Amino acid sequence: MNTAVGNRIAIFGASGYAGGELVRLVDAHPSMEIGYLGAHSRSGSELREVHPHLPGGNRELGSLNPDRAQGMDLAFLALPHGASALLASELAEMGVAVVDLGSDFRMDTPQRYREAYGADHPLPEQLSGWVYGLPELFRDRIIGASRVAAPGCYPTAASLALAPLAAAGVIELEGIVVNAVSGISGAGRGVKSELLFGSIDESVSAYAVGTHRHRPEMEQVLDDMTGGTSSLSFTPHLVPMQRGLLATCHAKTSRDTSEVLEVLHAAYGNEPFVEVVDAPPATRWVVGSNRCLIHAVVDSHTSSVVVVSVIDNLMKGAAGQAIQCANLMLGNPEDSGLPLAGWMP
Amino acid sequence: MNTAVGNRIAIFGASGYAGGELVRLVDAHPSMEIGYLGAHSRSGSELREVHPHLPGGNRELGSLNPDRAQGMDLAFLALPHGASALLASELAEMGVAVVDLGSDFRMDTPQRYREAYGADHPLPEQLSGWVYGLPELFRDRIIGASRVAAPGCYPTAASLALAPLAAAGVIELEGIVVNAVSGISGAGRGVKSELLFGSIDESVSAYAVGTHRHRPEMEQVLDDMTGGTSSLSFTPHLVPMQRGLLATCHAKTSRDTSEVLEVLHAAYGNEPFVEVVDAPPATRWVVGSNRCLIHAVVDSHTSSVVVVSVIDNLMKGAAGQAIQCANLMLGNPEDSGLPLAGWMP
Amino acid sequence: MNTAVGNRIAIFGASGYAGGELVRLVDAHPSMEIGYLGAHSRSGSELREVHPHLPGGNRELGSLNPDRAQGMDLAFLALPHGASALLASELAEMGVAVVDLGSDFRMDTPQRYREAYGADHPLPEQLSGWVYGLPELFRDRIIGASRVAAPGCYPTAASLALAPLAAAGVIELEGIVVNAVSGISGAGRGVKSELLFGSIDESVSAYAVGTHRHRPEMEQVLDDMTGGTSSLSFTPHLVPMQRGLLATCHAKTSRDTSEVLEVLHAAYGNEPFVEVVDAPPATRWVVGSNRCLIHAVVDSHTSSVVVVSVIDNLMKGAAGQAIQCANLMLGNPEDSGLPLAGWMP
Amino acid sequence: MNTAVGNRIAIFGASGYAGGELVRLVDAHPSMEIGYLGAHSRSGSELREVHPHLPGGNRELGSLNPDRAQGMDLAFLALPHGASALLASELAEMGVAVVDLGSDFRMDTPQRYREAYGADHPLPEQLSGWVYGLPELFRDRIIGASRVAAPGCYPTAASLALAPLAAAGVIELEGIVVNAVSGISGAGRGVKSELLFGSIDESVSAYAVGTHRHRPEMEQVLDDMTGGTSSLSFTPHLVPMQRGLLATCHAKTSRDTSEVLEVLHAAYGNEPFVEVVDAPPATRWVVGSNRCLIHAVVDSHTSSVVVVSVIDNLMKGAAGQAIQCANLMLGNPEDSGLPLAGWMP
Repeated sequence: MNTAVGNRIAIFGASGYAGGELVRLVDAHPSMEIGYLGAHSRSGSELREVHPHLPGGNRELGSLNPDRAQGMDLAFLALPHGASALLASELAEMGVAVVDLGSDFRMDTPQRYREAYGADHPLPEQLSGWVYGLPELFRDRIIGASRVAAPGCYPTAASLALAPLAAAGVIELEGIVVNAVSGISGAGRGVKSELLFGSIDESVSAYAVGTHRHRPEMEQVLDDMTGGTSSLSFTPHLVPMQRGLLATCHAKTSRDTSEVLEVLHAAYGNEPFVEVVDAPPATRWVVGSNRCLIHAVVDSHTSSVVVVSVIDNLMKGAAGQAIQCANLMLGNPEDSGLPLAGWMP
Repeated sequence: MNTAVGNRIAIFGASGYAGGELVRLVDAHPSMEIGYLGAHSRSGSELREVHPHLPGGNRELGSLNPDRAQGMDLAFLALPHGASALLASELAEMGVAVVDLGSDFRMDTPQRYREAYGADHPLPEQLSGWVYGLPELFRDRIIGASRVAAPGCYPTAASLALAPLAAAGVIELEGIVVNAVSGISGAGRGVKSELLFGSIDESVSAYAVGTHRHRPEMEQVLDDMTGGTSSLSFTPHLVPMQRGLLATCHAKTSRDTSEVLEVLHAAYGNEPFVEVVDAPPATRWVVGSNRCLIHAVVDSHTSSVVVVSVIDNLMKGAAGQAIQCANLMLGNPEDSGLPLAGWMP
Repeated sequence: MNTAVGNRIAIFGASGYAGGELVRLVDAHPSMEIGYLGAHSRSGSELREVHPHLPGGNRELGSLNPDRAQGMDLAFLALPHGASALLASELAEMGVAVVDLGSDFRMDTPQRYREAYGADHPLPEQLSGWVYGLPELFRDRIIGASRVAAPGCYPTAASLALAPLAAAGVIELEGIVVNAVSGISGAGRGVKSELLFGSIDESVSAYAVGTHRHRPEMEQVLDDMTGGTSSLSFTPHLVPMQRGLLATCHAKTSRDTSEVLEVLHAAYGNEPFVEVVDAPPATRWVVGSNRCLIHAVVDSHTSSVVVVSVIDNLMKGAAGQAIQCANLMLGNPEDSGLPLAGWMP
Repeated sequence: MNTAVGNRIAIFGASGYAGGELVRLVDAHPSMEIGYLGAHSRSGSELREVHPHLPGGNRELGSLNPDRAQGMDLAFLALPHGASALLASELAEMGVAVVDLGSDFRMDTPQRYREAYGADHPLPEQLSGWVYGLPELFRDRIIGASRVAAPGCYPTAASLALAPLAAAGVIELEGIVVNAVSGISGAGRGVKSELLFGSIDESVSAYAVGTHRHRPEMEQVLDDMTGGTSSLSFTPHLVPMQRGLLATCHAKTSRDTSEVLEVLHAAYGNEPFVEVVDAPPATRWVVGSNRCLIHAVVDSHTSSVVVVSVIDNLMKGAAGQAIQCANLMLGNPEDSGLPLAGWMP
């Protein structure tokens, strides 16, 4: 399934939903091959027990010992918040390139980290050594980098919707409102009462109202793109579906719809994975794909623009984006091994 | 099932989802009984063919001829936009009290109607004769009224969340952002490709971005409550569930969470169907019930309040609220025949 | 909500799905009122924390101490397998009538119990003191009884489909095949990985293939009705929905469809909760209702009849049927407090 | 995406669910490329309007004119029953290899066709020129064939479960009972009231009880494999999910579980797409994959074996199997372009 001369890849955190997607994508990648699979509580299990949809022989999940990645080209870390920092640091010292899908190294300063996570960073001096892995906005920094922190699913959808407009000065940086809905896989694979089918099916709820830790990450991206200081309000919601994420972003603007669309088309006209679309997109259109679809309308009644973006939270919002970053880091074609087509119905 | 001395009720539009709920609720109401069931395209069908979950003998759906409601105490109209105006007018002339679940008589002026629906009202001189049927805000007007226009599901959820805060001067009337998600029953029972299971399941989409006709209705309520002029941006979304509606409302405020909650508790402390709750509510908590749950948090970072409200779009958002209005019009206890308990799982 | 002279009811196991339905039904019952709510692990919790869809003031869940039901008219037990036996025995000694929704007292002999559950019954001498609570088949035994073991959801659906045909000698007692699908609430409220939304949604699986413990219970009913010895093969499946159960039952017959229907109509023509229908029924038609719908077709190609029956597993398959039994035990009208209408959509 | 020297492929019926999967699979196939896309009512539409999940430029759907496939290597027909016969005949005369995913040429004799479809075949003399496209059972006939009729989804699942056992004489050919559940995509993309989300979600129903036209197709496979005469009863059900199909097959046997498993392992040990598994499989394990998983248990109580098989009805049950056949017809590796990994969650 892989060429002999491919990149050897370690995946730490292979037992979660994002980890499973990484295994699937690397298995099918034309120039990557899996060199090691590590997990925490499921260490010692067969891959097929943990991910019964992933065949391919008897593959055992090992531990999270970084030494097991010795000599690999790159390691993906798909671990809970707080579990990546030390491991990432050790891998980097071993000369293994790292894409961390977790949140430990996304913030650019210790202050921003504390604002987001309410605690001090364990290795604050290392924060500046990491690149934020959103290729459409920061491609130049990612090419050839060895330490990339891939964004969360909500910031990916919101940033792709808002950042070009902010950078072009088309929207105001204050008073931005981001509402988003996510499929349940975004909440992880933990065995919790509130994630039972009987709790989730046929129901919607908001969570972390006013306090979600992805809000500072979104502001950081807008500040980075503009040199200004943004402030936004973010409210996430869980909806009864497995995958898919939709962000509805409101910002003040004095422009009309065509001016807004012009900026978005200029930003994404040549991007393989981002498309500006004429009708409000459904999340299902991108499930299974690494694409992000963006739709924008100016509501002149309130002098605001509504930008709607959709992604697959496990693809462009996690594993797909991590592969996209890894391609740039390792010198592969950026879209290598990344499906454009989704799955319907 | 009904007492001999109950209110005799006609239901026009009994074949749709809201019509089915009206039949179910009136059948179980201690002082109402069904006197006539009318429908448009399903006229001539047995009720049980159209609503296989509603037993109770062989009941045929008749036409939309208003004469069939002669002598009834009250008629519910659950018809598409534009189909109520003439029928409602004729019923009112016959002395039959009317609760219109449709949108024809919700607007208070011909101007507001034109803004919402993009056309002139067919009977503009009659608009002022109708009362807006949201009991928690306009109870005094509804008691004993003979023509009540019940609100739409989105305006019910948004108005209950925002109106007390607006009336108390706690939030700014400009720059309000309302995002809402609704189960599919809110889109009606039309046989359309975009409402197939294969289109809706496992997907979310926004619709009518920047143009939804419920937006002026929401502003009308806030203006009525405050004497001011509000402006808000409204974006509705469809999510893959049958019932349930959640509105996430953002408004500028200089107050803190406890001050906001104080206003809401004062407004709803004695209401049987509205409750202020400490945690973000799930729509499933109110499906099958006429309740509305409200949760509010001030985000001091952006000086805004986020108010989340949930209802069952077919109950408090349609049939339940219509029964509640009818109870007030006919002198019944307001909560008569209206379940508080929902259905889980 | 209840009359002053109603039956006082204790519910042990009020925190599960069936327990929640019992609370909802007793709250709305015209001649029952809740006297005590007991639970195991959720003892000490507020009812509203455990069942957020059930309002009605601050009600705390107590322990499973039988003394708390002293002086009550009847106790419902909705506890896991094995947890009812001793408690039921103590309640019965206290003179409290008992409806056990669990499986401890359903089998008529210690031998049958051992066959079903693979262990000896803890109180084998008491088995004969219990009545099997399927009113349509054993009404005379239930009227005035003080110890009733309500059937499981699968045996209810299969027995209502097959028992009249067996009793009339229309089908062979050997070679019966019952396949059934159930909504997830039938699997209970346990917090297990295999019941997560991410595991259940968009998936179907069979379970307990060849070994399900409800099989001997189904055979017992057929044997009781016929005096013969039946043998059947039963395979249950979980499908991604909250409620609803459909049984597809195959049996050998030499009759044609009209003869089979004649037997079914004769058996159920006067039953309030069982209806023979002309088209294959959908489970949704009975969700929220205590009804069972039955459809039968003879496949002359294989000389067999296919009988399809649908119920709401938490209503006619659990709490509704328990109320129906309690009505018969306490001298209430059999259909008192039991909805015929379901909920759609 | 395709090599220069690949097989040129026409797809007639590209607008349906199976057609969309064919486009997706051919687009990703290493040695196939799309030469023509035809449709009936959606002729003239852009592919992206019809299948918004399939990007890849502006591709228009043409008509069903066979001339448009002139010079192509192979045509897939994914058309409604009855729409393939003439088109297939014309394509074959033009020298284009044909895989018909429809039912027109699956039956081996005009008599069997009439039994299944209740009408005479329009081109009865051509039936014998077609090969039944189930590679695991009839690989030798498919290799190099030019006219292949791919099986329906239900017969694929049932035949893979039963045929090796029948061929080995391990089960009786009479009295077989097949129950199956299918996701909604199996019912096609027609805009019908009974396929609305509001009708399907949270509900299960049986259909075509005693009369489904796939039953004779299943018997034909067993008869072909054994030289005997089988008779089976088949009942299909729709469950609320997009994809996936599970067949639960009962047959009389005098063997035990280990003997049954031995036969199945011998039959499928070297098959890339069929696997015998130890635990009851969930349909989700194979959604997106071309795999079929089979689980078997002998119920000694009734001397019968229960064989459960799961497939993705649009993959191994339609488009995936068609590609597998085409690979054999065109000399490609059998598994070329066919994913083993599925998608979870």
